[in-house]
Amino acid sequence: MIRTPYLLFLGDAPDMLAAKVAIGIRDWRPENAVGQFRMDGCGADLGIPDLSLDEALEQGCKTLVVGVANRGGVISAAWKEVLVEALQKGFDLASGLHNLLRDEDELVAAARVNGRTLHDVRIPSVAYPIANGKKRTGKRCLTVGTDCSVGKMYTAMAMDAEMQKRGMKSTFRATGQTGILITGGGVPLDAVIADFMAGAVEYLTPDNDDDHWDHIEGQGSLFHVSYSGVTMALVHGGQPDALILGHEPTRAHMRGLPEYQQPSLEDLRDTALALAKVANPNCKVVGISVNTQHMEEAEALAYLAEVEDRMGLPTTDPIRVGAGKLVDALEGI
Amino acid sequence: MIRTPYLLFLGDAPDMLAAKVAIGIRDWRPENAVGQFRMDGCGADLGIPDLSLDEALEQGCKTLVVGVANRGGVISAAWKEVLVEALQKGFDLASGLHNLLRDEDELVAAARVNGRTLHDVRIPSVAYPIANGKKRTGKRCLTVGTDCSVGKMYTAMAMDAEMQKRGMKSTFRATGQTGILITGGGVPLDAVIADFMAGAVEYLTPDNDDDHWDHIEGQGSLFHVSYSGVTMALVHGGQPDALILGHEPTRAHMRGLPEYQQPSLEDLRDTALALAKVANPNCKVVGISVNTQHMEEAEALAYLAEVEDRMGLPTTDPIRVGAGKLVDALEGI
Repeated sequence: MIRTPYLLFLGDAPDMLAAKVAIGIRDWRPENAVGQFRMDGCGADLGIPDLSLDEALEQGCKTLVVGVANRGGVISAAWKEVLVEALQKGFDLASGLHNLLRDEDELVAAARVNGRTLHDVRIPSVAYPIANGKKRTGKRCLTVGTDCSVGKMYTAMAMDAEMQKRGMKSTFRATGQTGILITGGGVPLDAVIADFMAGAVEYLTPDNDDDHWDHIEGQGSLFHVSYSGVTMALVHGGQPDALILGHEPTRAHMRGLPEYQQPSLEDLRDTALALAKVANPNCKVVGISVNTQHMEEAEALAYLAEVEDRMGLPTTDPIRVGAGKLVDALEGI
Repeated sequence: MIRTPYLLFLGDAPDMLAAKVAIGIRDWRPENAVGQFRMDGCGADLGIPDLSLDEALEQGCKTLVVGVANRGGVISAAWKEVLVEALQKGFDLASGLHNLLRDEDELVAAARVNGRTLHDVRIPSVAYPIANGKKRTGKRCLTVGTDCSVGKMYTAMAMDAEMQKRGMKSTFRATGQTGILITGGGVPLDAVIADFMAGAVEYLTPDNDDDHWDHIEGQGSLFHVSYSGVTMALVHGGQPDALILGHEPTRAHMRGLPEYQQPSLEDLRDTALALAKVANPNCKVVGISVNTQHMEEAEALAYLAEVEDRMGLPTTDPIRVGAGKLVDALEGI
């Protein structure tokens, strides 16, 4: 686990797009986002206090999180100066960058000398077991998508937040780097060795109270030929009690695969449910989460109503409308 | 690729069971199995010439293959003496052992000094790409099983051998350590990083002549919750034109999963075909391969006839009866 709360390092991010991870932390775990650290030329602003390293320490920050994409895939000398100083002052570092903190000699040395930890969240830190398929206590919900990047993480986070608001027992379970940085823990599933994928998901979602829900962050799609194996491991390792169908209706083709079209929601429902029943015969498809960000309000609401009517399942956009309907749908399970 | 032909190292294998990999090489690539190297106390015998290192070199052997399981998971001092001498004399080494050749300092040093290569076939040696799903030329056949270890590799090898016999264009594509050692190349799919599994299968089965068949070694099962993600990557990365259903009818439960039962052949057919059509809409289920090794002859033949009648698909045991029926079934594709 990454120690919280965080000081969010934005470096010299050119714009808000480059600060996607930091934005996610601010939006979903504002209690973790105590302040931001910006360097000269930074074009991003999270609207939270600008803090020096010392100020952040005084306010209880434990980890400096690199919440920004770096230019050219290299940790620059200017960044490194700040990161080394942070280690010297007592921060841990956490990053989801492709180039790893652990591959930078200065950072490794400073962490060792100061007894601090470097978290590269793209890399598994645990030797996960082979999945054993044993039935676990507690309940699990998984969003499966018609495609990659249709809002599966946001759906799970929104459902978790709604349950927390209602006083229900609920945990968001991160399976990707952004989710891990937001919540401080999880499994970077796309970087796990093939044989251990399902076991990693079992490890992530252990026995729990009978009325506790794990909201497992989905990955890929059963219909996306590049990543379907990762999705399959979530369906079988997660042994979900409830599936949510995730969809983004404005795509011209599958993400990154110009020759492939998205499946219908009906095909997704039938395929995912049949596979999920292998691990949990009681699994049900309970609702639909549509990402309507590229639609106008009226168009979006009409689309949601049409899908709900056609599929006979509660349908919402958890960001535009809210996740209440999906949580309602879980209450009977 | 591992350089062939081989001298097969049996060490002090207590019995034939420990020599499974060497037996596979002898049976499926006899031209690669020039001789065996046995140490004092060896209880295995492949029925091929016992050769010293020097004799094997004279007969053209290029690689000493550790075709045997080791006791206690440790490469013993007695083994190491032979392996170092082999490197000094000019052999490469290849092994599928859990403990890696590259983790043994003496072997690494001897390989470096003598300019030789250590092949640990459990570990990927290539940075595989992300799958792009593009349609490839040539034809591909994949066996999907009701369970793990139902004879998928033997089915693919037997079909390849039958095609070679008929003068057809055909290649066996290994996806596991035994297959890699037998043929000298392939992808250790269960050790590949999740995101690159399907890409590794695409890499393994590139564009080919229109009348050429790749026989892709299957792994796991879509119904085995521990490994289904690996199987899914084969179904989508392999974009098979033809599926064979693999089955072992005497199992009490799924291998390693006492709480799980095997699916019916009907369920396997429907599930696998629907998923395969995502990557190749023209994919067909063309036949059934039953592993009848635990049945008496009459029982086995009756079972094959019953399945063939019930499923309406050519059904055989490629080891007991032969793979001719399955190859016949491909000729129309």
